[in-house]
Amino acid sequence: MKVQKFSLSDAKLERSPGQDADIFVGNLVDERHGGPVTIGYGRYAPNQSLTETMAVHDTMIILQGRLSVSTADGTVTAGPGDIVYMPKGESVTIATEGEGALTAYVTYPHWAEAHEG
Amino acid sequence: MKVQKFSLSDAKLERSPGQDADIFVGNLVDERHGGPVTIGYGRYAPNQSLTETMAVHDTMIILQGRLSVSTADGTVTAGPGDIVYMPKGESVTIATEGEGALTAYVTYPHWAEAHEG
Repeated sequence: MKVQKFSLSDAKLERSPGQDADIFVGNLVDERHGGPVTIGYGRYAPNQSLTETMAVHDTMIILQGRLSVSTADGTVTAGPGDIVYMPKGESVTIATEGEGALTAYVTYPHWAEAHEG
Repeated sequence: MKVQKFSLSDAKLERSPGQDADIFVGNLVDERHGGPVTIGYGRYAPNQSLTETMAVHDTMIILQGRLSVSTADGTVTAGPGDIVYMPKGESVTIATEGEGALTAYVTYPHWAEAHEG
């Protein structure tokens, strides 16, 4: 794969698998492209919540809005320009309040393969 | 490592190794933390340029400003919210004009180890 530049408009956002909240993700780079990481954008509507045990190491960069990530150790809240690192194996609840949030994410290894496996 | 949230103020920005342009990087997560990826922030002053053959797969998210990435195939320009994926092995020139740029990056594998190796 070559150097590529992506914008939000390049992503096809679809409801994140295995949950029915208004949380939508769109991969731009993934297992189809031969590299080691999955890259995409995520959009969280206001007042949504998603609880998950991380199947991959996931780095989220908050581009707009605000979200919180809660674990057994506590809750962090992140806004524009902040980074949240969620290592594989951690149990997290990602939640939005009134603003919702737009994120970019990079996972290692590929997210779809880890979920299917 | 646990879930962690980082802001720009958490990063100690230092001149990017092996070059003397006004380009500064600060790792927040790297080989010291036991995971597979390096995560950090990068700040590019205006009118800087850096040419490099990628030692790692590097995903840059542009948080502020604007930068261009040129390869033998052409040039892409990215602004706030855009993502640039630079696979290992690609030769790139990253350049800023009048605005400079602030980025977040995620590399696989670790950047420092690849540079030393």
